[in-house]
Amino acid sequence: MSDTRPIGVFDSGLGGLTVVHELREALPNERLIYLGDTLRCPYGGRSIDAIRTFSREITTFLMKQNVKMIVVACNTVSAVALQDVIEVAGNIPVLGVVGPGCRAALHTSVDKRIGVIGTKATVRAGAYGNGIRALDERVTVYEKACPLLVPLVEEGFAENKVTELMLEEYLDELVDFGVDTLVLGCTHYPLLSKQIHRVLGGRIEVIDSAWWTAREAKQILGDRGELAVEREGNDRFYATDMTEEFTRLASIFLRGQMDSVVEIDLHNELTEIQ
Amino acid sequence: MSDTRPIGVFDSGLGGLTVVHELREALPNERLIYLGDTLRCPYGGRSIDAIRTFSREITTFLMKQNVKMIVVACNTVSAVALQDVIEVAGNIPVLGVVGPGCRAALHTSVDKRIGVIGTKATVRAGAYGNGIRALDERVTVYEKACPLLVPLVEEGFAENKVTELMLEEYLDELVDFGVDTLVLGCTHYPLLSKQIHRVLGGRIEVIDSAWWTAREAKQILGDRGELAVEREGNDRFYATDMTEEFTRLASIFLRGQMDSVVEIDLHNELTEIQ
Repeated sequence: MSDTRPIGVFDSGLGGLTVVHELREALPNERLIYLGDTLRCPYGGRSIDAIRTFSREITTFLMKQNVKMIVVACNTVSAVALQDVIEVAGNIPVLGVVGPGCRAALHTSVDKRIGVIGTKATVRAGAYGNGIRALDERVTVYEKACPLLVPLVEEGFAENKVTELMLEEYLDELVDFGVDTLVLGCTHYPLLSKQIHRVLGGRIEVIDSAWWTAREAKQILGDRGELAVEREGNDRFYATDMTEEFTRLASIFLRGQMDSVVEIDLHNELTEIQ
Repeated sequence: MSDTRPIGVFDSGLGGLTVVHELREALPNERLIYLGDTLRCPYGGRSIDAIRTFSREITTFLMKQNVKMIVVACNTVSAVALQDVIEVAGNIPVLGVVGPGCRAALHTSVDKRIGVIGTKATVRAGAYGNGIRALDERVTVYEKACPLLVPLVEEGFAENKVTELMLEEYLDELVDFGVDTLVLGCTHYPLLSKQIHRVLGGRIEVIDSAWWTAREAKQILGDRGELAVEREGNDRFYATDMTEEFTRLASIFLRGQMDSVVEIDLHNELTEIQ
């Protein structure tokens, strides 16, 4: 039996397309529905109440599209509002990017000293630290907010010496702390993977949450007998604001073809749903 | 006669508090009402339609507070939605930060070669270029988007070598272009004034739009006989989202005391108004 219902994926903006990229690699037969809340991104600096409200709105919208699973590609939402998504999603499985990152880090670290980099909201919530310690309380986790990395990636400075200097500023502390594993706790950071490896000098294992999330999504759907055997139709992309840079940014993160994008007014959509 | 009605000031976020700082210096008797749209900032990457809608909503809210003048502290709004503010404001004067910056630059430049730095939205709209050329079409204006400067200031890297390297990346082109005057076309940039002077090496005059805006606001109210002779009550601050970093950021920009802040839901406020 082929379960042709789509997988719903959402993020505060377009960074979550790095997770779409990995889902496409791991699950080429699955049809994806992506929503980027470009009108209200970035969530990183918003209050927790605002992030919870936004997450419930988006989940309600995705449920209306008859998705069989929801992947929360946003670290901030996974950190502070995953429970809200689970509540609204009811019986279908929900997978945030934080859990797979925690499990992979724990599996990888030998010395049980793990570093995590992310946005301020993710770090402030202590999401990875709490998640990892819940699995093994002997692990020491050092979480570090790196808020400049997102704009540097988005502005095309990934290859510039400014970014390398910034990475040194941010990562030196983690190296001094003696971590043997570093979790990339933000959708944008896989695009700095090469530079991060260079600054770390090969001494530290780097965990890409997006890659591990796609792997776990495949496992969950397989266990439930809900995999699609063959692809039916194209992926669908929704955005809450069609910014002028949409196409440029999408191509950075997706590293692949984006079929047409539909702009939606979430408030109107939800009013119609009610 | 003392006109004790307040002056309304708004910005997409907290950067506009640099304008409040200058207004307080120039007009110590005036009571100010500030609204920072922290729930939806930054506007720089949003579509023009979204920015126009937001500006109309905020102006409607300020009008309800019986303001005698509206100062648009946001360069992006001044660039793309000033006409919307003027329409909603009706008979009271509206002053954006772009106009005063243009007039001051034209007055200062000897060679008639002017550089402007700002957010992408401000530069994309060509606001300063169009404004300056409307005053004198012989002037050559070189506008340059510097999107990393806002996060660098907000993250406390103003004094760091990363910011100096970034400023060199951004400003070298303008120096090569031979400008003799540089307009700081973003609320945040006055906080980099010292570093900008250092990178420019004293060869170029720097125009702070916020300072000139406060000067023009005083002139306009004086001409209309609407100045307050003495202060009645404290300034009032509204924000659409009380983010965790509100206090830290406000103190960077305001360089002075912020009385209590009230969080408002703009949609509810406007529904009540209707």
